[in-house]
Amino acid sequence: MDESKGIMNTGLRDVVVASTRISDVVSEKSKLIYRGYNIAELAGKATFEEVAHLLLHERLPAKAELDAFAGGLAALRGLPEPLLAALSTRPADSMPMDILQAAVAMLANHDPGAAKITREATLAGGMSLIAKIPTVVAAWHRIRSGLPPVPPDPALGHAANFLHMLAGEAPDPETAAFFDTCLVIHAEHSFNASTFTARQVASTRAHVYASVSAALGSLSGELHGGANTRVMRMLQEIATPDRIAPYVDRVLDSGGLIMGLGHAVYKNGDPRVLVLAPMSRRLGERANDTRWYDLTALLEATAKEAFKKRKNLDIYPNVDFYSASVYHYMNIPADLFTPVFAIARIAGWTAHVLEEQFAGAAPKPALYRPASEYTGEYCGPSECSFVPMEKRE
Amino acid sequence: MDESKGIMNTGLRDVVVASTRISDVVSEKSKLIYRGYNIAELAGKATFEEVAHLLLHERLPAKAELDAFAGGLAALRGLPEPLLAALSTRPADSMPMDILQAAVAMLANHDPGAAKITREATLAGGMSLIAKIPTVVAAWHRIRSGLPPVPPDPALGHAANFLHMLAGEAPDPETAAFFDTCLVIHAEHSFNASTFTARQVASTRAHVYASVSAALGSLSGELHGGANTRVMRMLQEIATPDRIAPYVDRVLDSGGLIMGLGHAVYKNGDPRVLVLAPMSRRLGERANDTRWYDLTALLEATAKEAFKKRKNLDIYPNVDFYSASVYHYMNIPADLFTPVFAIARIAGWTAHVLEEQFAGAAPKPALYRPASEYTGEYCGPSECSFVPMEKRE
Repeated sequence: MDESKGIMNTGLRDVVVASTRISDVVSEKSKLIYRGYNIAELAGKATFEEVAHLLLHERLPAKAELDAFAGGLAALRGLPEPLLAALSTRPADSMPMDILQAAVAMLANHDPGAAKITREATLAGGMSLIAKIPTVVAAWHRIRSGLPPVPPDPALGHAANFLHMLAGEAPDPETAAFFDTCLVIHAEHSFNASTFTARQVASTRAHVYASVSAALGSLSGELHGGANTRVMRMLQEIATPDRIAPYVDRVLDSGGLIMGLGHAVYKNGDPRVLVLAPMSRRLGERANDTRWYDLTALLEATAKEAFKKRKNLDIYPNVDFYSASVYHYMNIPADLFTPVFAIARIAGWTAHVLEEQFAGAAPKPALYRPASEYTGEYCGPSECSFVPMEKRE
Repeated sequence: MDESKGIMNTGLRDVVVASTRISDVVSEKSKLIYRGYNIAELAGKATFEEVAHLLLHERLPAKAELDAFAGGLAALRGLPEPLLAALSTRPADSMPMDILQAAVAMLANHDPGAAKITREATLAGGMSLIAKIPTVVAAWHRIRSGLPPVPPDPALGHAANFLHMLAGEAPDPETAAFFDTCLVIHAEHSFNASTFTARQVASTRAHVYASVSAALGSLSGELHGGANTRVMRMLQEIATPDRIAPYVDRVLDSGGLIMGLGHAVYKNGDPRVLVLAPMSRRLGERANDTRWYDLTALLEATAKEAFKKRKNLDIYPNVDFYSASVYHYMNIPADLFTPVFAIARIAGWTAHVLEEQFAGAAPKPALYRPASEYTGEYCGPSECSFVPMEKRE
């Protein structure tokens, strides 16, 4: 497998590890399908609650179903007091993704059904996490800012309620609708790194809290969910349009990458960008501050041209590239962009944990347990002989 | 890949996902190799600290190196006060693995270097986790029991100190040495489920705390690290030798499995059992209570014969089968057996995170991002058309 005897690190790229009925990423056509629906159709038409229902129950809900589903989520939003007490022990400079990873594991402590690995218990735990992850993110932001957490408002939808809990006031309807659409298009993306982590942990018959906490660890990495925060930092570092071309040249000279450009799967463009780019422009126009949209669009155009000219590469922005300015316009702090990704993706993770543990013909899922090739040659071809400590050099 | 259009769930069995210099599981020869050394050679000769040094630094330490390494670990054992405060908020009936998964994520909050993804920062974080995970497990057991945590004793070795912190008194030398050997043989096991999770999370360039917290989620599953606890529950349920044969028959009749028998990789026996079985017997004899060893040995013999006779299958005990009675004789509560597994395996996880992020010729590791096959057929061969809610049925 590895003639150089180095580390392969091919990352299972293009290896089909399982089948799924949840979503399809059609790379060459730049399409993302949730349970049969193209996200280009869902974005702006369906709410996050409708899409979460679609992902978990395999169909868009009728009105009465949606009312029950959304009402169920709204009723689960509050956090147990001891969890708020635990958050209050955390240093104010803690990284929000670390807080969220810990909080999700702790939420298992408050679910008497967590130890049961049944479809019902997993669905109940997943619903609780879909409802509570936004509350954890907002509560942590308030606590670290020295402010009391804002209780969830059951009269608000899922998206609007998060912005309300974060800022202490309800967002205007257009911002709420845009944020809702952001959650819809981030809700699911097949076997990406964090979802694969969730499935893998679930395959050991660990519970949904353990699986989702693990997925959050995966999402925190800068090559995955951490990228949207880094796009914003990059825009802030570039700061003015005249510095874009030198920045792109510098990155290309050093063989580096530009955060938010390129995607492991989409080779001809990420369909979510078609939703986010106009949203960023509109939010900038409304705020009379198109600076961040303009910088993003100019960076895209400049980098595209430079990669084509210097490397003959067609490069496209991915979901993180325009979500950065969108969230910035919504007054979400940059270090919460990745937790906001989690607020959406928990719907997909829950669907995948359910599928991993309970779907399919097999009576029980097989644990993910790959093989590896041993390339250590510490004592030549044979085993090392134990040397007592006094004889070691 | 999947003609039935069901879920495959082959769990990557026998798929070589990467090369590694850390360890080798030689299935057909029933050998486990750490950095060139057969564990049959290390067990009883090397301490956990020596083996952790071997795993992290690729060689057994000379005396001065070991003193520095072990002294460094001993100095890192104490927990930050705010972490103890967070543990004190947790309900007493919380599952210890959930507590540990949360605590490891929270330890990142107390490491100012956690955000840096450098070899030095990862090694420092890993050392801190090797040192502190035993303290978290013991402190949580004391807190849930209404007792104050016992501070670590720097005069004691890693293994003895854990038993000291758990019980409030130092173990006798033979028990300490046996527990040390248990940690040695559990320290590493190639790409098993939790290690694969750790590597996968690390591949996103998440930090070592996020990676290890995720691995703990994986280890908590009953098909993985949770098995040793379940072996003990099974022995307690069987309770007397006369109930063994009916138990085995019942399991075979229902097509079920016996916890602790069989292994995904070792087909001819698990080499760690050769260390653990005599240890269990000796601990039983010393305690004048061979009941748990006897039950385990008789269950092994009975199940072996029954599987051979009824299914023509050769079945062997795995590491969990005898570790259950061993830990029980050491007065470790059954629901801490899996956390004790983690106390050992953190050495291997740290080595794997380092290898995933920093070893090899490639300038940066490839994110694990496998492919999947979409088998959803919600609207026939074409995409579903969005139906507005008022028209849904």
